[in-house]
Order: sequence, then structure tokens, then C-alpha cells
Amino acid sequence: MLAVLDAWWGGLKGEAGARERALLLPRLYFQHFTTTSFLVEDDGGEVAAFLVGFLSQTDRETAYVHFVGVDPVLHGRGVGRALYRAFFDLVRAHGRRWVHCITSPQNMASQAFHTRLGFTASGVQADYDGPGLDRATFTIDLSTTPAGTP
Amino acid sequence: MLAVLDAWWGGLKGEAGARERALLLPRLYFQHFTTTSFLVEDDGGEVAAFLVGFLSQTDRETAYVHFVGVDPVLHGRGVGRALYRAFFDLVRAHGRRWVHCITSPQNMASQAFHTRLGFTASGVQADYDGPGLDRATFTIDLSTTPAGTP
Repeated sequence: MLAVLDAWWGGLKGEAGARERALLLPRLYFQHFTTTSFLVEDDGGEVAAFLVGFLSQTDRETAYVHFVGVDPVLHGRGVGRALYRAFFDLVRAHGRRWVHCITSPQNMASQAFHTRLGFTASGVQADYDGPGLDRATFTIDLSTTPAGTP
Repeated sequence: MLAVLDAWWGGLKGEAGARERALLLPRLYFQHFTTTSFLVEDDGGEVAAFLVGFLSQTDRETAYVHFVGVDPVLHGRGVGRALYRAFFDLVRAHGRRWVHCITSPQNMASQAFHTRLGFTASGVQADYDGPGLDRATFTIDLSTTPAGTP
């Protein structure tokens, strides 16, 4: 998984970037949150896209999308949108109304994508995840998002 | 929280270490897993110790301890043990039998501590959490661990 990430992110921020992505995706997510995560493989069985999410344990009306990746050769073909739609339908079935996620403030493509899906941006918060780790935060209200969308 | 970590870890591995600890503890843990996490404050309201854990969504018999920290001035006074005991009692009430955790292979004190608590080590696994991120893995069977212990 981490190998494809480096390819997909084009080695963004070099070795430090690869380490950063690895630390954001420890193995625990692929062990303990598989029931709310999705993996798309291509015909050859290679990873083509994935979404890692979970149900909030604290707030029973909330779910969270932690990490999403789509092979750049598939960008623009609705794969990311389909992953979010599948996640929304799944967490709705668990009674979740709100979905939160964050992106890097530098990632304008991701921010535009989330806005198109119907997420509301609540702005960039400095040092959100620690010193120098600013984040743009997003929320969607599934109660006003028709089932089977976006 | 991250500020105390740097103090407690004595700036281990410098700026890269601080960044690594921040990336392992994104804000999401303090938002969505508070019901299975514990924070101990001293008389002045400062953070003295904490345990961040969660219930596995995949395996309903399993819980996971993600990150534990104890102010070094309190080491040897049973604070870490008390945090684990509280976590064990809590996850038992949720029907969990197994608790997993990992440590850095370099952290011999942590490995000895987990063994004293009754965890079984299953060895060091190279690149467990990504390239260069070797981990020592530990498991405890709560069905053979008396309640109210360790």
C-alpha cells in the first residue's frame, strides 16, 4: 500500500513525505477499521484506489474519512466519488449523520474535490495536528445529502 | 499534548522524532476515541499521563492500545499500569478478549513493561508500519488475566 502511495503522490516532499504518509497510515488501520474501509483493485489485482475511514467511538452520529488515494491514471473518472458514496451509504446504515475529514492546506485539488462532493469547508486551522501540521477541515451533513449520492 | 510528549521523550530523535510523534497522534484520536482513552492530570491541571486506545471495528473480540505516555517524573509509581488496568476493565465491559499493541524495537523499557503486565511478545517485525518502521508486537488474553489487574 505504501509503495503505491509513493508512486501516486509522485514522491511529494521526497523521503520525508514518504515517511509522513507511512506514519499517517500505520498497519492498525488495515487491521481494525476494515469494516468501514474500501479497496479497489484493477484487473491485474493491483491497488487502484482505497478509502480508510471509521465510525467515531465518541460521537455516535459521526464518521470520519482518514485517508483516500486514487491511482493518478484513474483521476477524473469518478473513482474517488464512488468511494465516498460507498462510505456514506455504509455509515448511514450505522446511523451516522456527519462525516468529517481533513486535507493538507496545500492540496487545492483535494479541497476542490471535497467541495464538489458537498462537504463544507470550515477553513484552515494552523497547527491543527501538531506544530507545522496545518489542516483544512471539512464536514458533510448526510441528512441533507440524498442516499446514493454524490 | 504534543508539547508534553517532546519533554517526556527528551527530544528523542530531535525534530524528526517530534514530527513522528505528532503524525502518530493526529487530532482525530482526541476527537473520536475519547471513550476508550484516559488522561491523568496532576494537581495543577497539567497532563501527567495518558493512554489512547480503541475498540477494533473489524474484530469484536479485540481492542488496541495506540499510544501511552507517562511523565518521566512519575515513572516507577504504577501510573502506566493503572492506565492499562483501567483500559482492560473498560474493554472487557465491551466484550473484548484480546488487546494488541506495538512498540518501537529500540524501546526496551516499554517491551519489559508490557511483558511485566502479562503481554506476550510475538517478536520484532521488519517494516511492520512501513519502510524502516520496524515494530515489536504484543498481545494479552484478558480471559486469562484476572479482572482488576494487572
